[in-house]
Amino acid sequence: MGLTALPGQKVFLHGGDYNPDQWLDRPDILREDLRLMKLAGVNVVSLGIFAWANLEPREGEFTFEWMDQVIESLHANGQQVILATPSGAKPNWLALKYPQVRRCDAQGRREPQQLRHNHCMTSPVYREKVRIINTHLARRYGKNPALVLWHLSNEYSGECYCDLCKEAFRQWLRARYKTVAAMNQAWWAHFWSHTFGGFDEVDAIDPHVNGLALDWKRFTTDQTVDFMRAEIAPLREFSPQVPVTTNMMGTFEGLDYWRFAPALDVISWDSYPLWHSNRSDYEVASDTAFKHDLNRSLKRRPWLLMESTPSNVNWASISRPKKPGVHRLACLQAVAHGADAICYFQWRKGRGSAEKFHGAVVDHVGHEHTRVFGEVAAVGRELAAVKDILGSEVTAKAAVIFDWDNRWAINSSAGCRHSEKNYEATVQRHYHELFRRGVAAEVIESTCDLADYQLVIAPMLYMLKPGVAENLRRFVHDGGTLISTYMTGIANETDLVFTGGWPADGLMELFGVWAQEQDLLWDHQSQTLLAVPDNGLGLTGSYAARHYAEVIYTRGARVLATFEHEFYAGFPALTVNSFGRGKAYYTASRNDDRFHSDFIGGVLSDIKLHGPHGSALPLPDGISVQVRRQEGREFIFVMNFSEIRQEVSVADRPLRLEPWGCEILAVP
Amino acid sequence: MGLTALPGQKVFLHGGDYNPDQWLDRPDILREDLRLMKLAGVNVVSLGIFAWANLEPREGEFTFEWMDQVIESLHANGQQVILATPSGAKPNWLALKYPQVRRCDAQGRREPQQLRHNHCMTSPVYREKVRIINTHLARRYGKNPALVLWHLSNEYSGECYCDLCKEAFRQWLRARYKTVAAMNQAWWAHFWSHTFGGFDEVDAIDPHVNGLALDWKRFTTDQTVDFMRAEIAPLREFSPQVPVTTNMMGTFEGLDYWRFAPALDVISWDSYPLWHSNRSDYEVASDTAFKHDLNRSLKRRPWLLMESTPSNVNWASISRPKKPGVHRLACLQAVAHGADAICYFQWRKGRGSAEKFHGAVVDHVGHEHTRVFGEVAAVGRELAAVKDILGSEVTAKAAVIFDWDNRWAINSSAGCRHSEKNYEATVQRHYHELFRRGVAAEVIESTCDLADYQLVIAPMLYMLKPGVAENLRRFVHDGGTLISTYMTGIANETDLVFTGGWPADGLMELFGVWAQEQDLLWDHQSQTLLAVPDNGLGLTGSYAARHYAEVIYTRGARVLATFEHEFYAGFPALTVNSFGRGKAYYTASRNDDRFHSDFIGGVLSDIKLHGPHGSALPLPDGISVQVRRQEGREFIFVMNFSEIRQEVSVADRPLRLEPWGCEILAVP
Amino acid sequence: MGLTALPGQKVFLHGGDYNPDQWLDRPDILREDLRLMKLAGVNVVSLGIFAWANLEPREGEFTFEWMDQVIESLHANGQQVILATPSGAKPNWLALKYPQVRRCDAQGRREPQQLRHNHCMTSPVYREKVRIINTHLARRYGKNPALVLWHLSNEYSGECYCDLCKEAFRQWLRARYKTVAAMNQAWWAHFWSHTFGGFDEVDAIDPHVNGLALDWKRFTTDQTVDFMRAEIAPLREFSPQVPVTTNMMGTFEGLDYWRFAPALDVISWDSYPLWHSNRSDYEVASDTAFKHDLNRSLKRRPWLLMESTPSNVNWASISRPKKPGVHRLACLQAVAHGADAICYFQWRKGRGSAEKFHGAVVDHVGHEHTRVFGEVAAVGRELAAVKDILGSEVTAKAAVIFDWDNRWAINSSAGCRHSEKNYEATVQRHYHELFRRGVAAEVIESTCDLADYQLVIAPMLYMLKPGVAENLRRFVHDGGTLISTYMTGIANETDLVFTGGWPADGLMELFGVWAQEQDLLWDHQSQTLLAVPDNGLGLTGSYAARHYAEVIYTRGARVLATFEHEFYAGFPALTVNSFGRGKAYYTASRNDDRFHSDFIGGVLSDIKLHGPHGSALPLPDGISVQVRRQEGREFIFVMNFSEIRQEVSVADRPLRLEPWGCEILAVP
Repeated sequence: MGLTALPGQKVFLHGGDYNPDQWLDRPDILREDLRLMKLAGVNVVSLGIFAWANLEPREGEFTFEWMDQVIESLHANGQQVILATPSGAKPNWLALKYPQVRRCDAQGRREPQQLRHNHCMTSPVYREKVRIINTHLARRYGKNPALVLWHLSNEYSGECYCDLCKEAFRQWLRARYKTVAAMNQAWWAHFWSHTFGGFDEVDAIDPHVNGLALDWKRFTTDQTVDFMRAEIAPLREFSPQVPVTTNMMGTFEGLDYWRFAPALDVISWDSYPLWHSNRSDYEVASDTAFKHDLNRSLKRRPWLLMESTPSNVNWASISRPKKPGVHRLACLQAVAHGADAICYFQWRKGRGSAEKFHGAVVDHVGHEHTRVFGEVAAVGRELAAVKDILGSEVTAKAAVIFDWDNRWAINSSAGCRHSEKNYEATVQRHYHELFRRGVAAEVIESTCDLADYQLVIAPMLYMLKPGVAENLRRFVHDGGTLISTYMTGIANETDLVFTGGWPADGLMELFGVWAQEQDLLWDHQSQTLLAVPDNGLGLTGSYAARHYAEVIYTRGARVLATFEHEFYAGFPALTVNSFGRGKAYYTASRNDDRFHSDFIGGVLSDIKLHGPHGSALPLPDGISVQVRRQEGREFIFVMNFSEIRQEVSVADRPLRLEPWGCEILAVP
Repeated sequence: MGLTALPGQKVFLHGGDYNPDQWLDRPDILREDLRLMKLAGVNVVSLGIFAWANLEPREGEFTFEWMDQVIESLHANGQQVILATPSGAKPNWLALKYPQVRRCDAQGRREPQQLRHNHCMTSPVYREKVRIINTHLARRYGKNPALVLWHLSNEYSGECYCDLCKEAFRQWLRARYKTVAAMNQAWWAHFWSHTFGGFDEVDAIDPHVNGLALDWKRFTTDQTVDFMRAEIAPLREFSPQVPVTTNMMGTFEGLDYWRFAPALDVISWDSYPLWHSNRSDYEVASDTAFKHDLNRSLKRRPWLLMESTPSNVNWASISRPKKPGVHRLACLQAVAHGADAICYFQWRKGRGSAEKFHGAVVDHVGHEHTRVFGEVAAVGRELAAVKDILGSEVTAKAAVIFDWDNRWAINSSAGCRHSEKNYEATVQRHYHELFRRGVAAEVIESTCDLADYQLVIAPMLYMLKPGVAENLRRFVHDGGTLISTYMTGIANETDLVFTGGWPADGLMELFGVWAQEQDLLWDHQSQTLLAVPDNGLGLTGSYAARHYAEVIYTRGARVLATFEHEFYAGFPALTVNSFGRGKAYYTASRNDDRFHSDFIGGVLSDIKLHGPHGSALPLPDGISVQVRRQEGREFIFVMNFSEIRQEVSVADRPLRLEPWGCEILAVP
Repeated sequence: MGLTALPGQKVFLHGGDYNPDQWLDRPDILREDLRLMKLAGVNVVSLGIFAWANLEPREGEFTFEWMDQVIESLHANGQQVILATPSGAKPNWLALKYPQVRRCDAQGRREPQQLRHNHCMTSPVYREKVRIINTHLARRYGKNPALVLWHLSNEYSGECYCDLCKEAFRQWLRARYKTVAAMNQAWWAHFWSHTFGGFDEVDAIDPHVNGLALDWKRFTTDQTVDFMRAEIAPLREFSPQVPVTTNMMGTFEGLDYWRFAPALDVISWDSYPLWHSNRSDYEVASDTAFKHDLNRSLKRRPWLLMESTPSNVNWASISRPKKPGVHRLACLQAVAHGADAICYFQWRKGRGSAEKFHGAVVDHVGHEHTRVFGEVAAVGRELAAVKDILGSEVTAKAAVIFDWDNRWAINSSAGCRHSEKNYEATVQRHYHELFRRGVAAEVIESTCDLADYQLVIAPMLYMLKPGVAENLRRFVHDGGTLISTYMTGIANETDLVFTGGWPADGLMELFGVWAQEQDLLWDHQSQTLLAVPDNGLGLTGSYAARHYAEVIYTRGARVLATFEHEFYAGFPALTVNSFGRGKAYYTASRNDDRFHSDFIGGVLSDIKLHGPHGSALPLPDGISVQVRRQEGREFIFVMNFSEIRQEVSVADRPLRLEPWGCEILAVP
């Protein structure tokens, strides 16, 4: 067996968040849970995620007895335990006695005690209180045979603008810039007389000083990771053998998860796609796959689906129940993309408060005779049956760059449109062309090593952090194929615009183009691309562009398509440049679906990068194919994200897929 | 004569808010008012509603002389007086000297002195200042022969989050729950570690703790009623013979008016339908009738229309003037639904500030030669002419449940959609089927006695307060017919979800169905219902459903319609269950207009509940028929809420109605 | 030569904002700027606009050396200097040491130090700090031969609600009203018990007390002008010969620029039309012309275009680059309407912060080989070539009233619709009919002298300040033609509604109509006008009306069109009244484009007021014609604001205009 998500993992984990602390007055329910877990094929539960008030009801008074008993019962019943640190929600006594642990908002106002995920990451008091409770947990359960994993807090998120955080930010800036002159230059602070006379003058987090706002976001990530490391310390001390994770949130805007990965032993995340909504389920599946791949890429190894809903969520404006079969399909999709665990939020619906209508394995009705319970139990059986797949790897020759710093810089810059910047959607739009061809991909940040890839797609890479341009040049020089777009190579790592022409920092030579102007189209306007004959990629006829169209001039590149309208009619719309042994493509506009398909399909043909169905042609609409490999065997997942029956041939085997069906081919 | 709104009332009241305090420097205007009031047939005015600053210009200095004179002049001129307590707007000196009487907003910030309706209901200082001025008023005018009614404050509303209010809330909670453990359980407070260590830890009004937020709303109503009772005390002391009212606001979300009714002698409300808008005038008329019926139901006796506009309002984005005839029609509609008074806001337009463009009897032009004045004067004459109707009763065999607690719980719960929950509109949609058939109805809360009804319609009765389920069961058992919908019987009075299946608390047996899942449709999606042959209600063909569709399983009920699509195709969409001597209908989805008409029309036929036109068929579009009864006579109001001439036969008399026309038939 | 914008001005100024303080570490860039300025034909730059932090990096430490050098280099290179006072953005040290110089928002919260244009106008500390730096600048550069103009601060704007400002407001009120009783009456403060016991009780700026809110806006303008005068004092002391200006913002809502004009020597403004957007470019050109004319009318003499973009802006949601030729066209349009200078924001794009993507002459690429630079340089050459036009005047026989007080009062009054009041757009819609006929116009406030005009258009003149009604009556009496609309003559200068009928204050006699009611149409509703035969203006058939339709009664006027629908069918929709030797037109509704064209075209024919093309017929769509006159010569600008080639005959010369072309005819 390859590298499993958890060391020594023997079976797919199947389980979910379990909150017996909400039912301590109902021992009948707790007993019923044990019976139902067996029926559902649940072999693991996450405990204590928001249990602080029940573990330490008053300052310094600890009540672990109920948890002792729950863990003992579970263990006896066959369930392992993922144990959470409770820092995600602080008890009222803590919030009221120590107001300084509550966050301040951007206007400096201390927040009331409400909701959750609302503590200051800097507060020494909070860190100390967390250290104490974590120490107690680690000492008491760190060696418990039921314990397989530490679950750090819950969905870390948010910012605090208290004086302590601001002072920590100033220290962070001192460490980063050394001199205030360097900081002023990095932030272009002479503009509007924002010049800082010293680090101590940094106070308001002015979003208009783009470099400052960007550094604040970086600081927020770093401070959160620092808090998380502090959480880990007592766990490591008392249970060095137990791995740690935290449940992340996909492409959550507020935190750069690449900074989290090194501190964690295993990656896990909470996936909540909205099926059957106002988007096609195939697109939803593609975006979900994108996030699965991102999580796998963070450590390039299997990961855990820590939360998902067996039915619907309650936080979305509308969330329809999964149609029959969709639950199984979504679970197997996660496995196809590298998951070694399928867990749910949550095991049993609570009777009150904010999440009382969030889907769960056990509904309010309380018994197993529901459609949802039945589908969950079936997944439990199937995961047990396919355990050969556990720990197998996903190999990808393509990568898509999705970079948090770049995203923050794009979103915070006034100009280049205020709306419809759509960085994330644009990256996912490109990813979708790989997805619908069964071409496995990794989702990486711009500084990752590119040596293993044949193809790298880097849409809207506005920001070039140090080394990134050289990284791309080396990749192409050594034979790689690079696809890029408008809005590439514009600013450095502090969002200072490059002088001397875009794409900057040596990329003008790489792409063989100079982007002189940027046309920004209104929503009712469009531009047209005309394919140049014999373009070699199979582009034909005309394509429509929206939002962005750059006026570019070739500096050695070959033109594959041109614009039809405006003062830049006849100017290049798509170019390719040979550089070393590779090729670099530049797309000057945001184009329609047919363009994406023809263009990326053409490039994949050109470099002979195929999915398991043996061609660069797209699969039928709704079909996804993904492969996990282990010791010479391939497990090919063929999935039907549509409501109709479909036929497709994969690895020379004709397959018939039911609506929402999934087949797993083992080859050989 | 039956029970009039005011004891001993001899004529329909006709008048309005009168603010001579804005014109004290213009004795010519005050004299002109007396002349014009006679011309307009005005026999009552409401005085002093916002006159505090003119009655007590400086703390402890009272200036009642102008009011003495105004009342004397009015009385001599033939107008009676409704005298207001002035608490609805506090003078600047009070707000500035005693900041604690100003409200705090949800963030705890003390509000500035502006607008009106902005005082803390808890503040002992404010209560004392109100007690003093009310005592002065009661002592001076309580025995005045012109005085017919006390008008308490004005449109009570709003919340205050000051420390005093929060402490009062904690006392309220102590009284309600006795132990903090009971409160924690009622609020499901262990969720997210919100467990309270004591009542004193209740501080932030966290809307995510649904039970807490719900109790805060109840507290707000109770505290407002408590304030109102304190206002009443000195009035009772000096004028025990004069009844008290306060002007309410229909279905205002912030206050549960059922808690107000016991403290008041007579019900009055302010009705401001927006005619000629983006909705049909017939719908507007129906919703207005709904609110009239609600106000009549609060005490099951005639009531007062305390405010209405003779032309247009100024607070709506757009408010068109009433077309000729609409003013008379709207006034007579109020009478048809039980009003014994028609009053306006206001008599004369003020020259400045926020309401200077709100409609009034006397326009800025100042004379009687306007269309609006003419129509008001005609109403005055007509009310005098139909005085036989005064004090007659409205009898209803149907009731529609509209319950504030239920509405608050539905609106505050995340899940079950976030938008388009539309509780109020859904109730009014059902009411409309009675309205358009001339079937008189009461609008009641879920705990009301149901013994007098043949039919009860209880849409979306999500919350079952103690006794409500039994109330419904007894009603049906004893022969009643009950109509219910999706989202029924889900949570208890503190918004804790029932376990064991929905509709809960014994309603599964009543309806003979189990609602296992809830499908929530996006706005662009729909579901279809197919009528089962021989359903007995005359349902035919297919109907469209939106927003909500529940997956229900019969437990004894008969299926009258099924769903056509989705995984629950063929499942029940409409069921009926015989229970005791009655029947209980369950509608699993939110359906189209034709369904409402066929279904409710069918049920009305089945139970032979007809309007005065003698059938369960709908009246022509635009026509409303309502009856008041007195000593064996019937006064049948036939109203045409449309711009076209219409013919209709009622009580065997063929009638021809002009556009916006209204005929009153006296039978015999 | 006539009166130039600057005294003794010899050439059109051509230049822009220059911020060498952002590039002090790059002497190579500063040298390159000098070379490029010559290439671009730049003869003036604005210096120091946001340079305070670089001029006084620490309190009391001044560093003028870099500016000495920059000015010296520029002067040697042929550029003159416009020197700014730096008050538009305060250094961090100042904001942190003296928090009282930062504004308080409407809730009284002190703002953080961020953005710009954020200082308190009242603060004695800020005024003193500004006085010191201004004195240093004036002493050091006041006699510098390069200096041609003082540039006061930058785009004054904003409000402050600190205690100092509120106290200043109270003083302002004391001066205005003398007695609190007068103030109470002016604000109709007895309404809702808002009566003030003294000026010291004025605290919250309650927007619902319309008169108070209006006075607060007036105070804000007055306080800003007072601050500006304080800025001017030291400049006058050390450089009495150098004129002062401040860059204004067209029709900016927050400040009444008519109050600024007397304090300034020359008018300048920042013009940023959004070309190629979701509106037609011809409309954009018309609105831009309107603002140019407003600025010229402020002093009735040539003015300076102080800021404009050579390409696009970055603060708009979307701003497309100007198409080739549009830059020249927009510059010449400004000249046609009286500009003696064309300046840009800014010379060179900064590398970071909020405006890094705002258009500039020198792009990030840094060299002159861009389309934008080329077009700017061509404008520089052309301005040098047409210097005969410099200082010529624009004469107008038509005026359009656009009045800030009136606008504020309309926008703050609840009633008369809440949305789509559109005062500014309505005025511009009327102006457009003059624009598209080449009829030169002034844009004036309602109290301006009207003696020089044949035609005055006063749309929606809701407020009649003292003397305004008499001003209009005298104008018509003496032979003028007046066009007015619905919503005229309703309130006095403190927004107290007139009694006795509208249009009030003697205008009922002027227009010969009484407006009894106002119908407010929903967006989906419309009304129709029917032309009366032989109306004498050439009105034919039917026209559509939206939003507003008044029910008016003639009192002597002749009816030219009537309404077709509603209860006021047959009532007048357009009237004309002869008054003295002139005529007064009243339009009772907001009408469609064809009406505006027929009606205003008809009136212009009637009074024989023509453009240079010799008729009252509209020019072809897209064409604008404007004239500047000097010593008997006419310079006729014929401009094509469209993407197609056009032919037009002006002054008997047939012309062929390229897309976006402009020809200047000199006659004779």
